[in-house]
Amino acid sequence: MNEFELIARYFTASRYSDDVKLGVGDDAAVVCVPTGFQLVAAVDTIVEGVHFPVGSAAEDIAYRALAVNLSDIAAMGAIPKWFTLSLCVPTVTETWLGGFAQSLNELAARFDVQLIGGDTVKGPLNISIQILGIVEQDRWLRRSGAKPGDLIFVSGVPGEAAGGLNTLLHNDSRATLDGDNKHVSHLVQRFLKPEPRIALGRALRPFASAAMDISDGLLGDLGKLCRASGCGASLQLEKLPHSPSLVAMYGPQRAEQLSLSGGDDYELLFTIAPHHLAEVERVSSQCGVSCTHIGSIDNSGGVACSRGNQPVTINQVGYDHFALNDMSVMIDI
Amino acid sequence: MNEFELIARYFTASRYSDDVKLGVGDDAAVVCVPTGFQLVAAVDTIVEGVHFPVGSAAEDIAYRALAVNLSDIAAMGAIPKWFTLSLCVPTVTETWLGGFAQSLNELAARFDVQLIGGDTVKGPLNISIQILGIVEQDRWLRRSGAKPGDLIFVSGVPGEAAGGLNTLLHNDSRATLDGDNKHVSHLVQRFLKPEPRIALGRALRPFASAAMDISDGLLGDLGKLCRASGCGASLQLEKLPHSPSLVAMYGPQRAEQLSLSGGDDYELLFTIAPHHLAEVERVSSQCGVSCTHIGSIDNSGGVACSRGNQPVTINQVGYDHFALNDMSVMIDI
Repeated sequence: MNEFELIARYFTASRYSDDVKLGVGDDAAVVCVPTGFQLVAAVDTIVEGVHFPVGSAAEDIAYRALAVNLSDIAAMGAIPKWFTLSLCVPTVTETWLGGFAQSLNELAARFDVQLIGGDTVKGPLNISIQILGIVEQDRWLRRSGAKPGDLIFVSGVPGEAAGGLNTLLHNDSRATLDGDNKHVSHLVQRFLKPEPRIALGRALRPFASAAMDISDGLLGDLGKLCRASGCGASLQLEKLPHSPSLVAMYGPQRAEQLSLSGGDDYELLFTIAPHHLAEVERVSSQCGVSCTHIGSIDNSGGVACSRGNQPVTINQVGYDHFALNDMSVMIDI
Repeated sequence: MNEFELIARYFTASRYSDDVKLGVGDDAAVVCVPTGFQLVAAVDTIVEGVHFPVGSAAEDIAYRALAVNLSDIAAMGAIPKWFTLSLCVPTVTETWLGGFAQSLNELAARFDVQLIGGDTVKGPLNISIQILGIVEQDRWLRRSGAKPGDLIFVSGVPGEAAGGLNTLLHNDSRATLDGDNKHVSHLVQRFLKPEPRIALGRALRPFASAAMDISDGLLGDLGKLCRASGCGASLQLEKLPHSPSLVAMYGPQRAEQLSLSGGDDYELLFTIAPHHLAEVERVSSQCGVSCTHIGSIDNSGGVACSRGNQPVTINQVGYDHFALNDMSVMIDI
């Protein structure tokens, strides 16, 4: 079996759902957007040495490539439907491709999204996925809807993924202590397998005033949400979700820093008007995802932090995923 | 102005058309697919040293990245509408980015497509564009509709782009002869500026039985069309579109070889039932694009060539764009 046949074998679905009129194999795919819905489109590319460590397993790379795109759909409150894959790889082995395709197909099946096209090319490892979803007409979540007085929430426990990445990269000596193994494996899993918050995004859609996913760190991403909404925010540090694993591995100070500035969590950051508080509790329970109230939107124009009502200055370090080989992440456009 | 501001400046539209509800700058874009239409999606990635020579001008790279995607939409008979851009570049200078963005924006404006999202990352030069278009419900052009007895047509003059690329790469000594300059510049332009046949695809849509764009060479791509349609084809070599520039630069034999096996032309290969012959003449004239009858579909299961009714065996060489740095094109999925 040559590489052409291999690729065709791994990436052609045996069947598509009814909304796919034409899948992999023609010049383009054709799909149906149902009446009353709009199309949501995003692209995220991951590059070896920038978004994942050199030498990562094919399974982990495939998972990340699709998960970060699903997370963008979650942040819109939309339903993921289809995706295309552009796979640039230096060499292809059946083992690598098999592992990549299996992991990709498993995650795709779990979220009911279908691969409808793409291309592969030989070159430095670079995986670009374009995801397409649908959302009820004019009823999507956006970054720009936060208003002074709104409450700020975050799902899950930000910082754990960055803690896991740090452990992976630096092979922290504490990671080898027997008693810490459960913390290490928890943090590393949080980096390797971020969970796209699709169900939470869908449940928040009817009442959240603003939302985005956290890819570059809570504090920096909250700043983006505030700028998009033309407002400011105050963050109460004592309310940040607590991670026993981060504290065990890094101590309380560094754990807080990772919570504020670490990226790669792909949790949702969202705001609500105060009268929707009970609804957040309901959807949090319904989706099985913790949602923590961490602060409030104001009209200050900036993001201020406090602890016990005392102002705290944070030396914010931008999260550049990791700058191996002098590569660093630039910007979403 | 830092690189973040530069990118925001170059890739954020000042305004969008009404069908774009949310453009660049949120977690995803939101667009409207009109009632009665289906969504057409394709992705094509171009990599330095594979799809364009190392050291190509930013303007030429941007043009190619979008043009090859527009060509996929043309091959579907669809209307291009929106695209996302994933730009992986080793370094960014204002000059490079300015040239890239200007060329991209000019081509986008000419075909009325809008950039609605994307990302940029530092890394080996790799440009991935996902294009989205719309087409009348269940009425798109496909590869699989050719039937025995159908006539085979090709637009433009296949082979010229490959001739231009060959001249660029090998700096052919004949290219420096004064008298050949017009041929050289014609061929090089055909490589650098392939013209997406959007209008032709739209005009053919109501009656062509099958269509695809030629990216990897006429003979190989005709083979793909035949396999998709479950039929065969006979090609009359004496009918191939004649290129005075190819013949002047490469002689008649090599010119024919380039016509059959050279890629990068992004012309349309299509089939029609014989009673639509007059319509091809009408749309060819209407679109200002030559369409040449080069053979017929049969039920042989393969592609046979003849000259003056005598069978001719072609040693078909697959077109690998060009295998610089041991990179070669793999396959569309």
